[in-house]
Amino acid sequence: MADSTPAGAFIHAVEEYTVQQEPYYLPIGDEVQLFETAYEQRIPVLLKGPTGAGKTRFVEYMAWRLGHPFTRISARTGEEAEHRKPLITVACHEDLTASDLVGRYLLDTDGTRWVDGPLTRAVKIGAICYLDEVVEARKDTTVLIHPLTDYRRLLPIEKLGQVVEAADGFLLVISYNPGYQSALKDLKHSTRQRFISIEFGDPPKDQEAEIIAHEAGVTRDTAMDLAKLGEKVRNPREHGLSEGVSTRLLIYAGRLIHRGVPARRACQVSVTWSLTDDAEVQRSIEEVVTSIFE
Amino acid sequence: MADSTPAGAFIHAVEEYTVQQEPYYLPIGDEVQLFETAYEQRIPVLLKGPTGAGKTRFVEYMAWRLGHPFTRISARTGEEAEHRKPLITVACHEDLTASDLVGRYLLDTDGTRWVDGPLTRAVKIGAICYLDEVVEARKDTTVLIHPLTDYRRLLPIEKLGQVVEAADGFLLVISYNPGYQSALKDLKHSTRQRFISIEFGDPPKDQEAEIIAHEAGVTRDTAMDLAKLGEKVRNPREHGLSEGVSTRLLIYAGRLIHRGVPARRACQVSVTWSLTDDAEVQRSIEEVVTSIFE
Amino acid sequence: MADSTPAGAFIHAVEEYTVQQEPYYLPIGDEVQLFETAYEQRIPVLLKGPTGAGKTRFVEYMAWRLGHPFTRISARTGEEAEHRKPLITVACHEDLTASDLVGRYLLDTDGTRWVDGPLTRAVKIGAICYLDEVVEARKDTTVLIHPLTDYRRLLPIEKLGQVVEAADGFLLVISYNPGYQSALKDLKHSTRQRFISIEFGDPPKDQEAEIIAHEAGVTRDTAMDLAKLGEKVRNPREHGLSEGVSTRLLIYAGRLIHRGVPARRACQVSVTWSLTDDAEVQRSIEEVVTSIFE
Amino acid sequence: MADSTPAGAFIHAVEEYTVQQEPYYLPIGDEVQLFETAYEQRIPVLLKGPTGAGKTRFVEYMAWRLGHPFTRISARTGEEAEHRKPLITVACHEDLTASDLVGRYLLDTDGTRWVDGPLTRAVKIGAICYLDEVVEARKDTTVLIHPLTDYRRLLPIEKLGQVVEAADGFLLVISYNPGYQSALKDLKHSTRQRFISIEFGDPPKDQEAEIIAHEAGVTRDTAMDLAKLGEKVRNPREHGLSEGVSTRLLIYAGRLIHRGVPARRACQVSVTWSLTDDAEVQRSIEEVVTSIFE
Amino acid sequence: MADSTPAGAFIHAVEEYTVQQEPYYLPIGDEVQLFETAYEQRIPVLLKGPTGAGKTRFVEYMAWRLGHPFTRISARTGEEAEHRKPLITVACHEDLTASDLVGRYLLDTDGTRWVDGPLTRAVKIGAICYLDEVVEARKDTTVLIHPLTDYRRLLPIEKLGQVVEAADGFLLVISYNPGYQSALKDLKHSTRQRFISIEFGDPPKDQEAEIIAHEAGVTRDTAMDLAKLGEKVRNPREHGLSEGVSTRLLIYAGRLIHRGVPARRACQVSVTWSLTDDAEVQRSIEEVVTSIFE
Amino acid sequence: MADSTPAGAFIHAVEEYTVQQEPYYLPIGDEVQLFETAYEQRIPVLLKGPTGAGKTRFVEYMAWRLGHPFTRISARTGEEAEHRKPLITVACHEDLTASDLVGRYLLDTDGTRWVDGPLTRAVKIGAICYLDEVVEARKDTTVLIHPLTDYRRLLPIEKLGQVVEAADGFLLVISYNPGYQSALKDLKHSTRQRFISIEFGDPPKDQEAEIIAHEAGVTRDTAMDLAKLGEKVRNPREHGLSEGVSTRLLIYAGRLIHRGVPARRACQVSVTWSLTDDAEVQRSIEEVVTSIFE
Repeated sequence: MADSTPAGAFIHAVEEYTVQQEPYYLPIGDEVQLFETAYEQRIPVLLKGPTGAGKTRFVEYMAWRLGHPFTRISARTGEEAEHRKPLITVACHEDLTASDLVGRYLLDTDGTRWVDGPLTRAVKIGAICYLDEVVEARKDTTVLIHPLTDYRRLLPIEKLGQVVEAADGFLLVISYNPGYQSALKDLKHSTRQRFISIEFGDPPKDQEAEIIAHEAGVTRDTAMDLAKLGEKVRNPREHGLSEGVSTRLLIYAGRLIHRGVPARRACQVSVTWSLTDDAEVQRSIEEVVTSIFE
Repeated sequence: MADSTPAGAFIHAVEEYTVQQEPYYLPIGDEVQLFETAYEQRIPVLLKGPTGAGKTRFVEYMAWRLGHPFTRISARTGEEAEHRKPLITVACHEDLTASDLVGRYLLDTDGTRWVDGPLTRAVKIGAICYLDEVVEARKDTTVLIHPLTDYRRLLPIEKLGQVVEAADGFLLVISYNPGYQSALKDLKHSTRQRFISIEFGDPPKDQEAEIIAHEAGVTRDTAMDLAKLGEKVRNPREHGLSEGVSTRLLIYAGRLIHRGVPARRACQVSVTWSLTDDAEVQRSIEEVVTSIFE
Repeated sequence: MADSTPAGAFIHAVEEYTVQQEPYYLPIGDEVQLFETAYEQRIPVLLKGPTGAGKTRFVEYMAWRLGHPFTRISARTGEEAEHRKPLITVACHEDLTASDLVGRYLLDTDGTRWVDGPLTRAVKIGAICYLDEVVEARKDTTVLIHPLTDYRRLLPIEKLGQVVEAADGFLLVISYNPGYQSALKDLKHSTRQRFISIEFGDPPKDQEAEIIAHEAGVTRDTAMDLAKLGEKVRNPREHGLSEGVSTRLLIYAGRLIHRGVPARRACQVSVTWSLTDDAEVQRSIEEVVTSIFE
Repeated sequence: MADSTPAGAFIHAVEEYTVQQEPYYLPIGDEVQLFETAYEQRIPVLLKGPTGAGKTRFVEYMAWRLGHPFTRISARTGEEAEHRKPLITVACHEDLTASDLVGRYLLDTDGTRWVDGPLTRAVKIGAICYLDEVVEARKDTTVLIHPLTDYRRLLPIEKLGQVVEAADGFLLVISYNPGYQSALKDLKHSTRQRFISIEFGDPPKDQEAEIIAHEAGVTRDTAMDLAKLGEKVRNPREHGLSEGVSTRLLIYAGRLIHRGVPARRACQVSVTWSLTDDAEVQRSIEEVVTSIFE
Repeated sequence: MADSTPAGAFIHAVEEYTVQQEPYYLPIGDEVQLFETAYEQRIPVLLKGPTGAGKTRFVEYMAWRLGHPFTRISARTGEEAEHRKPLITVACHEDLTASDLVGRYLLDTDGTRWVDGPLTRAVKIGAICYLDEVVEARKDTTVLIHPLTDYRRLLPIEKLGQVVEAADGFLLVISYNPGYQSALKDLKHSTRQRFISIEFGDPPKDQEAEIIAHEAGVTRDTAMDLAKLGEKVRNPREHGLSEGVSTRLLIYAGRLIHRGVPARRACQVSVTWSLTDDAEVQRSIEEVVTSIFE
Repeated sequence: MADSTPAGAFIHAVEEYTVQQEPYYLPIGDEVQLFETAYEQRIPVLLKGPTGAGKTRFVEYMAWRLGHPFTRISARTGEEAEHRKPLITVACHEDLTASDLVGRYLLDTDGTRWVDGPLTRAVKIGAICYLDEVVEARKDTTVLIHPLTDYRRLLPIEKLGQVVEAADGFLLVISYNPGYQSALKDLKHSTRQRFISIEFGDPPKDQEAEIIAHEAGVTRDTAMDLAKLGEKVRNPREHGLSEGVSTRLLIYAGRLIHRGVPARRACQVSVTWSLTDDAEVQRSIEEVVTSIFE
């Protein structure tokens, strides 16, 4: 289903991208059950939490979990094929327009041709559509999702003069980092009151160590040391930081250690320098590193 | 009349989208009669009220109610068909331009081709045109509707060099949330003095319980508890909120409870976390939840 | 001359839109004579006044009055026809560009094709061109009208590399609401000193009652009551309003009363709620309503 | 040379627009000789002065004066014809781009076709190019004229990859109203130090009376009264005005008086209401009017 | 090589524009040697100095000086021809985009066709490319020149997917007026530290007199008087000016005097009025003029 | 593989640009090993440091070092050829859009044709993609790289409706100058926590002298003197500078000295004038220069 380039890159049509293998995901509470209940009821879901808290991986995991293989005729190849639950992810940004989501006209040899955007594709095939960091998008895109999130489940496509009723499997999921919240970039009430909300916080230390050990291939002890470091640097205000360290950076440190980089140097380039440019704050983090990896 | 995709999505031409089944709507006062009188007189209508107060559903209900089936020849299929009152809804946003409403030229094999926008379609077929959150739109769109709202009932289409007199059945309805009112986004007097205004407030507790019971499938007692919660969290200032809880979120909570999620957890993800990111405000709402669902 | 759609909408070419029937207009002073004298001298006219003061209707009335039927060959049908004075109205807004007024190139089967804008059409056929709320337009549009308003009466069309001398019957009329005056949106002296100015104020109570009775079909007594209401709510500052009530809203109230809506309810939805969202100001207006329609 | 429309509008190619008849212009000092000397030396000229001071008419007069008829083959008709000095006027505004002045590609049946803008046409045929209110234009346009105003007399056309050396007869003239001077809209030194500057002030009273009498057709006495009014209202600060009355408005008043409008009413609509929207300032001007036309 | 229009304008292809005759340039110090050394080493050059200090003429002079005639086959005519060093000048402004410098696709009968911009042409033929007032340009253009100014001498053309290594003769020269320096329009260190810098100040009085005499054709005495005037008005702060008088304006005054305009009047229109609109500052300059030309 | 122009410019396809010869790079610490370890693990790398600290040269050196020649079939010529590690560099700026990185549709004889942007090319062929000064780019571009920097290694191409999994050799490297850090232009935590970070500071004096001697061809003594100058002017705050002198400027000074320009003059045009426009700061630097090169 996917083309490949000579150099080994694989190219998928957006609506044929599915999560084929179970992503490594360690549940923290009842978030898996909540998501499944919301999905059954087709209630849209908002995931709240800081950078690197695992929101994206959670959605990939849920798409894998909800997806029982099914048969569908490919629009591209005309062949039948087994599919899992398709997941269409859009990373939002301040230049993302409604056209980027819904579709646009392209000029072709036969005049203009309409090309569905990722949201329209998700609506038509009944995929999970995940709008990551939705507050970053322009306002026209957030308004666009309103009729998809109430009892109508409609997507108006003004440029086609059409209204699409979502296929049954469709679910809208958005994410949002309350830490970036500002007057300009807050999620409006007319939008947020259309979703149930699941909050993602920092993982407990033991659980984080388990994740680091699994992902970086380091020993349980090193993983625990890195999790300790994470916990200590997690209170950003104490260190003059605007945001704490994510599990991802701790995994990077673990992977460098695993390949022979000395632990303190690995923490410096993965954690300290990646967190801040401020020399004093860097020193304060280095002290924590030294106290753990003497 | 509507196409369907293999996955079950239905695609309608905008002007053929009608409300086929009576939407569930519980009148609060004489708003149904007022709307009907305004429609008879072709006086444009402004609906004012907060998020989730039911303005959209009211318009859908009125379109259903005003619509006695009639016969029209489809522009697309050339076939006669029975129609109800068409309703054309446009969710306004700050990038919505006059062209999005009126129409634009598209390049085709035979050069450029004009495509009517949703407002022009509504004017030509005599539909109800509902501009949701009209203050969000760019100024050129609000000016555009002025000649449609006085005795002339004209839509000038400058790019075609045409002036269209509205078909008899046409009515313009706009909505507006006074809570978002600001210097930049206020409805100008030259616009608002062209409409009669119907205000939507919070529903009385008993009525809200009835709605929750109907929509979420919970018992009358649970519905009443949720309505109580709504009433208590409805004074936003008291809880440090910028806006109170909408009926929609209470229905979400009811639907989760109906599917087995514990009531307090259901209220947390549907109400508390969806209303605010502030930990203190969340605690204050949790206390209200606990006092009701101990 | 005008096409009609099956649903009853009529479509006119812009330059063939004329006022066929005498609009109902009640002169307040010598404004009709002033306009006629200015027209004879081809002196451009600026109409100043608040929302709903009747500026648009006055221009329609003058176009009807100045227009003695004449014979012209239609550019579209090639047939001779009798015409009245053509009136081309453009509602200005902040996205109105010079191209919207003057014209633009469109892509066609034979390459690009120039399409005259409404101002160019007015200049070429000798129509009255009415630019409503001209300060809202972008600066390039106001500069554009300068050479049309001095002794040269020229319209430069830069994209065509042409200069058009206006046909004899052409007159430019603009309108302007001093109440919206701000540093950003004031009419520049280099523009305003090119027009004579006619100011429109509030109509005297008796005259307003006459208009309401005529337009809403209510009795003289009800009309007088509504005119009294208008007079009392006309001092906006006293009621904390930024603008007083227009005659149009009083007519709406009259039409609802005429159809059986109780007078106080009719005034609430037509006047009180349309004027303001502020609960206190609403109460203060309600008191006035109650004192009149007890 | 000029096409005409059935309704009597005349259409000229920009480079064939010349001033055929001597415009009425009353010299105030040596400005005519200064301009002629500058023209002989090809030194660019900046005209400074308030609205309506006669800058545009002065340029039209100089174009007429410098123009001894000459023979040129029309690019459009291929015929020889006698020409006067061509004058190409561009009213600058904040959306005027370099492309508007220099030219642009248009799509044609044979692909794209380049169309020279007014400045390029002036440079190629050796016309006077008059950029009115040049500070209003976007910065790219002012930079564009720099190489035309030093010893190189070059116009780079980047989109064509060309550099044009100006024809001998070319002269650049710009105008500028110092009264509008602001941080954002000031003429940069790198631009203004490329021109000699001629300042236009208010005309002496006798001279203004002569102009009014000539242009409005009123008696010498009425003209003198209007000139007196002009002089008294000319000190804007005294009347709380940002700018004094221009001769143009006094001529309008004269023309209305000439057609039978009472003098005080004519002054009210031509002068008082055109100058200001402020009721107090209006009263103060009315007093001056009354003291003259009792 | 250059086409000419009937009216006498000459049109050159950008890359065939060379300085054929020695421009009049009077060296002040070792700037000529410094530029030549930088050119040999291919070190980019930044010219700093106020308006009219002669930066443009210096670059034209250096292009003439470095240019020993050489033979090249014209891309346009296919013929061999002798060439001097080509000089490609771009006057930067705030709407200058990377596409304006590098090139763009144009639509043609055979689809789109790429057209090299002036910078690409300079890079390919090994010309001097002079970006005048580079801080005025948009940021993307300044970033664009970075890889051309280090040891790589590369021009990436992203729209073509190409990287061009500069031909040997290519040199980048930019100019910059520190007097306009502001937070928004400063030259970033990452840009300025890629150039050696040559500062241009005010010329010594004797030298300026020599320039004025040569350029305006006036006597040595008059030239000396004008140079004195220049010196006295050169301290802008003393006269309340933001910038002093350039040599160019003094030459204008000289040329008017040469043609019979009285010296004080010539200084008024060339110097006083061109420098400022402020009546008091004008008076203070007039006094200096009077003290010299009594 | 590369085309050449008659004048000696070489033109490469972006994905065929490789570093053929070992760039001169003097390692300061373990940065080479760190980069190699990160590359093995495919951990994205962020290079932090001031202007001219050698970040670009380091990446070129690493591309050369990682690149063992390999055989690939050219997409352009269809021929096999030996290749080193391809390096695709993009200088970011505030107008750089997602389309500039990912690709765009171009109009062709056969309608529109998609052209991959540099990032897509890098992803498909497995190149190092170096985004220089990434904070300068528009926000949509930084969001775009997120899915490429976590375990998914995906590039969504919304306009094609495709998702590309990166080829194995792909690595993303970005650079960033903390000295320019501001509220508006800071690297967001959601972006920076996706990279390990290597900081580049000022080189030690001996090492800098070695670089200057190698690059400028001057004697070891002169190089040492210039390195001393660099060290003394490196504390920007002491000299009222916003940024210290880069090694590049010291090399320029050395190259001018090498060609016979007196040392103090060479330092003036290469260092003093290039660093600042402020006369006082210039004097203070001149004193340092004089104290070294008396």
